[in-house]
Amino acid sequence: MKSYGNGGIWDFEAKIPVDGDGGVILGLDGGTTSTVCVCMPAAMPVVAGRLPEPLPILSRAIAGCTNHNSIGENAARETLEKVMAQALSDAHASRSVVRAVCLAVSGVNHPSDQERIQDWLRAIFPSHVKLLVENDAVAAMASGTMGKLHGCVLIAGTGTIAYGYNEDGRKARAAGAGPILGDWGSGYGIAAQALTAIVRAHDGRGPQTKLTYNILKSLDLASPDELIGWTYADPSWARIAALVPVVVSSAEDGDEVANKILHHSALELADSVKAVVQRLSLCGEDGKGSFPLVMVGGVLEGNKGWDIGKEVVNHISKVYPGVQPIQPKVEPAVGAALLAWNCFMEELTN
Amino acid sequence: MKSYGNGGIWDFEAKIPVDGDGGVILGLDGGTTSTVCVCMPAAMPVVAGRLPEPLPILSRAIAGCTNHNSIGENAARETLEKVMAQALSDAHASRSVVRAVCLAVSGVNHPSDQERIQDWLRAIFPSHVKLLVENDAVAAMASGTMGKLHGCVLIAGTGTIAYGYNEDGRKARAAGAGPILGDWGSGYGIAAQALTAIVRAHDGRGPQTKLTYNILKSLDLASPDELIGWTYADPSWARIAALVPVVVSSAEDGDEVANKILHHSALELADSVKAVVQRLSLCGEDGKGSFPLVMVGGVLEGNKGWDIGKEVVNHISKVYPGVQPIQPKVEPAVGAALLAWNCFMEELTN
Repeated sequence: MKSYGNGGIWDFEAKIPVDGDGGVILGLDGGTTSTVCVCMPAAMPVVAGRLPEPLPILSRAIAGCTNHNSIGENAARETLEKVMAQALSDAHASRSVVRAVCLAVSGVNHPSDQERIQDWLRAIFPSHVKLLVENDAVAAMASGTMGKLHGCVLIAGTGTIAYGYNEDGRKARAAGAGPILGDWGSGYGIAAQALTAIVRAHDGRGPQTKLTYNILKSLDLASPDELIGWTYADPSWARIAALVPVVVSSAEDGDEVANKILHHSALELADSVKAVVQRLSLCGEDGKGSFPLVMVGGVLEGNKGWDIGKEVVNHISKVYPGVQPIQPKVEPAVGAALLAWNCFMEELTN
Repeated sequence: MKSYGNGGIWDFEAKIPVDGDGGVILGLDGGTTSTVCVCMPAAMPVVAGRLPEPLPILSRAIAGCTNHNSIGENAARETLEKVMAQALSDAHASRSVVRAVCLAVSGVNHPSDQERIQDWLRAIFPSHVKLLVENDAVAAMASGTMGKLHGCVLIAGTGTIAYGYNEDGRKARAAGAGPILGDWGSGYGIAAQALTAIVRAHDGRGPQTKLTYNILKSLDLASPDELIGWTYADPSWARIAALVPVVVSSAEDGDEVANKILHHSALELADSVKAVVQRLSLCGEDGKGSFPLVMVGGVLEGNKGWDIGKEVVNHISKVYPGVQPIQPKVEPAVGAALLAWNCFMEELTN
């Protein structure tokens, strides 16, 4: 086999017997916090249009950030190559049996990003391997629809984005523009509103709130004055978003300010979904057609008393009663693998 | 004279004859963008309680950023020492004739900041020199009240803060917590809201607005998609705040979204002032007493059709009819010099 990519990373391949057993598929979910790569068999029995449950996962490898905007292209590339090598090595497979790869990574926003990343995947894998490069929202959708790209996905973790595909393959997005550009429904947005409420209560511009005591305690700070220094000491968005559970528990404890923030954020998230649904006409001409809404991310997970995800669905269903919320049973990396598998199967059957 | 500070910076002093002619005062206004130092005579004729008009300015020197949070303490210290040496050299004066120095610099928020900066000023000047270290908002107030610390100052440039003193010397502030913590009335806040409105119009969450065409044109960008990359390419707050004139002209041109942003920002700025006035009881028990409101910064300067400063005063006067808006006739560095001069005169008369 031709020597592709970084020799050292792929040394393990020399010890693996060439195995023609149907080959394998790689799916990658690359985020700003971590990256997951799963390896699945390319040959899966489909019975009455349904994939096996649970899905056969041969291996799973994890690594750090692979968003090229965040850590630079060279570092992102090396981490991606290593995590794929690890997954293949753990599955006792070499690149020669890979049939398709889907790399879904945050920071892919333009066709030029896709082309550049596809070029360097091409330098790693033999030319017959099918390669797909997508935004990580696409893998999240596929994790809920088991590989079908239709409907809408709403991600709300540290950041937020709504992303959709209609039956014709046309796509649309809303939000996902980061904290400066108004992603108020994101974990970062919720926490920043809570910090702002503390400052406003402290200087007399806003009502008193339990957020002051609860957040200062969780950060081990003595007074709201110290919050300014804490906020600007580190530009990490995830560090601020990590305060969301304190906002939720304050709201559950009856704090009006915290409740208002969560209600406002649920409306914002619902607006993002509604904008995508409308632009793609996902629910037919009468607005009553059904469409899947895949919901992913820590902000949308249910809590004891305050379920942001449920509130979002309530808002959406008032306008689009056909919304079908889906909590994915598999992780986004598996969604990416299913996209790669579909791509491979299409070629086989055409 | 004892050798204080950095020898090289002060070499010019050897050529200056010792002159006992009443001595001089230094006032410094140190910001994140630039720093100004003025030198005034310590002996000024006061007739019927009034200072001479125009004030006698012996020299004026300018330098770059001296916010220690922004550029680090050593760099801030060296720049401050150089700009003071330049002002003294231009006024043909040496440190031996300095009577008082007021250094008003952004980033001074805690008594510990004041003490640290006072310590290194003490290493530069002989021990009899009066030294004052304040937040730059204090110099802005003094520039409007000619050195008296009473009333409120509202600064709205790239950032915003409201700062006040009552007759007893008690002080209070509101806002000034930066963009993450809700300074919506600042230049940065106004421009960030405008950028957000463009993204929302583009992805179907908000109304169409002339801001899209006007801001993309001013940034030479082809589409709102490119705005995300532009926004996060550089973390400078001033770069975003520089878009305020485009928001104002769009509002003057009748754009509803731009008008809403400016109305909201004026309310925010008025709220900051009202919070300070209330906490310091600046307008007496009946709420009708008069108090000076010094207004400083690009956002508050009048425009052809849209005068944000006037709108702010309208909001305040509905609650506190005694508000007396003041547009300073001198710059904040002169305000700092007047504070230093007051301090020196108090000592003389006590």
